[in-house]
Amino acid sequence: MALEYPTFLINFKRYEGTAGGDGLELAKTIETVQERTDTSLAVAPQTPDLSRIASEADLRVVAQSVDAAEPGRGTGEIGLPAVDAAGADGVLVNHPESPQTLADVEAIVGGCRERGLESIVCVDSVEMGRGALAFDPDCLLFENPDDIATGRSLAETAPERVETFVSMVREENVRTRLLLGGGITTGVDVEASLRLGADGAGAASAFVNAADGEAWLADIAESLADSSVQD
Amino acid sequence: MALEYPTFLINFKRYEGTAGGDGLELAKTIETVQERTDTSLAVAPQTPDLSRIASEADLRVVAQSVDAAEPGRGTGEIGLPAVDAAGADGVLVNHPESPQTLADVEAIVGGCRERGLESIVCVDSVEMGRGALAFDPDCLLFENPDDIATGRSLAETAPERVETFVSMVREENVRTRLLLGGGITTGVDVEASLRLGADGAGAASAFVNAADGEAWLADIAESLADSSVQD
Amino acid sequence: MALEYPTFLINFKRYEGTAGGDGLELAKTIETVQERTDTSLAVAPQTPDLSRIASEADLRVVAQSVDAAEPGRGTGEIGLPAVDAAGADGVLVNHPESPQTLADVEAIVGGCRERGLESIVCVDSVEMGRGALAFDPDCLLFENPDDIATGRSLAETAPERVETFVSMVREENVRTRLLLGGGITTGVDVEASLRLGADGAGAASAFVNAADGEAWLADIAESLADSSVQD
Amino acid sequence: MALEYPTFLINFKRYEGTAGGDGLELAKTIETVQERTDTSLAVAPQTPDLSRIASEADLRVVAQSVDAAEPGRGTGEIGLPAVDAAGADGVLVNHPESPQTLADVEAIVGGCRERGLESIVCVDSVEMGRGALAFDPDCLLFENPDDIATGRSLAETAPERVETFVSMVREENVRTRLLLGGGITTGVDVEASLRLGADGAGAASAFVNAADGEAWLADIAESLADSSVQD
Repeated sequence: MALEYPTFLINFKRYEGTAGGDGLELAKTIETVQERTDTSLAVAPQTPDLSRIASEADLRVVAQSVDAAEPGRGTGEIGLPAVDAAGADGVLVNHPESPQTLADVEAIVGGCRERGLESIVCVDSVEMGRGALAFDPDCLLFENPDDIATGRSLAETAPERVETFVSMVREENVRTRLLLGGGITTGVDVEASLRLGADGAGAASAFVNAADGEAWLADIAESLADSSVQD
Repeated sequence: MALEYPTFLINFKRYEGTAGGDGLELAKTIETVQERTDTSLAVAPQTPDLSRIASEADLRVVAQSVDAAEPGRGTGEIGLPAVDAAGADGVLVNHPESPQTLADVEAIVGGCRERGLESIVCVDSVEMGRGALAFDPDCLLFENPDDIATGRSLAETAPERVETFVSMVREENVRTRLLLGGGITTGVDVEASLRLGADGAGAASAFVNAADGEAWLADIAESLADSSVQD
Repeated sequence: MALEYPTFLINFKRYEGTAGGDGLELAKTIETVQERTDTSLAVAPQTPDLSRIASEADLRVVAQSVDAAEPGRGTGEIGLPAVDAAGADGVLVNHPESPQTLADVEAIVGGCRERGLESIVCVDSVEMGRGALAFDPDCLLFENPDDIATGRSLAETAPERVETFVSMVREENVRTRLLLGGGITTGVDVEASLRLGADGAGAASAFVNAADGEAWLADIAESLADSSVQD
Repeated sequence: MALEYPTFLINFKRYEGTAGGDGLELAKTIETVQERTDTSLAVAPQTPDLSRIASEADLRVVAQSVDAAEPGRGTGEIGLPAVDAAGADGVLVNHPESPQTLADVEAIVGGCRERGLESIVCVDSVEMGRGALAFDPDCLLFENPDDIATGRSLAETAPERVETFVSMVREENVRTRLLLGGGITTGVDVEASLRLGADGAGAASAFVNAADGEAWLADIAESLADSSVQD
């Protein structure tokens, strides 16, 4: 299933308290907020939990990373066929914490297209974004690695960079969606992101570290819902 | 839960037909044979299925590979805490298809010890085996990469190499268990492996490609049971 | 010093007989042919010989690969400052035998620009070429990995693919140069490459394995000289 | 040529001012001190300068890192045959800044043995040292990564760890030599290292950052010479 925009993507990364039963519980919380707010949320669980969360939670599920590899040998590698079979709806490609080669980005985006998986390529500059667009991905996730886990979002610290990025994407490829990540902390960041032209946003540490994750996410989701209505 | 020896480990690698629902079904088949033959079998599922198979099948579950990394950032990396939370009983370390650094082998074997996970270090020579024993792993998996997927096992092609290996392990470390892999195709290979002093064996392609996986595995398991009785 | 086009680039890779004193001798042979034919040739020596060949041979010298890393720690890594100080004129980026991440391609092409080193990004498809052009490299090396060491060049096996590639590059970026590699075996291949719009070509095994390297290269260089005159 | 013990190894890493002509000049300084003090010094130059420094300076030269790869394709990889042809006398293996797999450590140490190159395996714990000894390297370089560039050596901060390490090595393998690295700052550190049983020591930043590198090294070399005489 393709993602539905606007969307908000929550990445569990390898944070403590997000794996196994804890991860499933967090996914259930996200599902609850999604239903209540009638929004479209997505989760990138820790890889060992992908299949379980995809089968037990009613959420769009995104693989944190896959290797560019055909089925077969390759103990320990995460193949596209495996995350597809596990029930993933999309794949993060080239996350700054799992950077990938130009050839692998091409292969994975192409493989996602064949399988109907949403390809979400992470980039941190206008140039890298333009480079990634050559492969016609479904979505770009624009994130300044320096903003990760800082509590300050790009929409706030450098709105003109976001605008430049959005313009470039809209000019180069009308169909590719655009998410903003890095330092997204409150609903205000989400509103700012959408106002600047993004199709959604994402977070990791802010959700994981929130005293009350459900309340935190509800605030985010309401901003998402409000902005959708305005469209 | 520690593995129970003698054991037979089935590695799904990234073979077609072993992911998602198919993988769960295969795991259920293994569970069935295990119960019927009263043996101890173990499975190394594709990583995205780890949590689901661990929670739905009554089998020892081994992670195909983990990265040596603490919890936290690290999108796409597979941490020891995550596979532990996912319900894994053990971890393959340094598989020839996911070779690992000396420092990572040390860190992962140590991390397994702290968490009560079985560390199974793959080695392909007496020297590498002796090197790995320095970290006091729970188990060594001795496998000649040239034998992988050939249908010929080391116990058959070079029994004297196996004997040398077994003697070295027994001399260096009384508690470390020893599995043989590579080209294990029938129960005869399993019997030969145990007779040469191994605590078990493993396979991947032979099970995955068997016309009747359940029958194939039953033959293997009976050899395992017979040999146990003789002990 | 920037490369001078049309050019022919000889990559020693890690072939036997191309390192140390042998490598220097080969470089001297290339220098001789260059002088005699009044063409512009370039060599990518084995990395440990870079400084010596750059200082002892009168040739454009290209580093086979560099890591994207600032000066400082990093034992064993090959930094851009080091190859610059060693006398390199350019750098191969993202060679299919040393593939590089999107972020590293961006960083290395940018670093080359600052230092006045020629950045030559290897790509194997129109899409990858377009992706690499986002970073505004000095030169693209278009090579089908399947053609490497086959004795059949892309200009011969798929001239229409070359034409498509050349058109794309000319449209996207007027200043980026374009070399063809993979299976270049004789002067005829060079002529065909230039006729299709390339600014040069490159080879590795064909030179290294030639019974008489000097004669082989003279044939190549004459084709290069003829084509230049025709321009 | 094998290294001559006791020795002091200077690693240029990728420090500024150590590449190209600067690197050659530093090597000449080391050569001068070596001659004047009648000691045996060794240098690990930046890889692109290996051949040039080996041919122009009268010093033992050690490659910072090599890849475990046979001759042939492999653009950008540093092969053992290449560093051998370049005139290297030895090779650093598994440096913490270029960690290597168990299989590669085995292959490179074995390859060094065949070629008469000194294999120097870096380890940071007693267990890793014991693991590396399984491959019978010529030398171990014991270094606590936390001490790198700190100005405090292990011989000073934890002499008992050094003693434990030395005892282990002497017990396991009589022929393997032992160097200490990490935070070696003055001749006093060298004396302490030798007194604790090491066959030498090494440094990187302390030499590179010294206001007067020649004077700094002379102090080191005199400690080396004094200790040799006492033996």
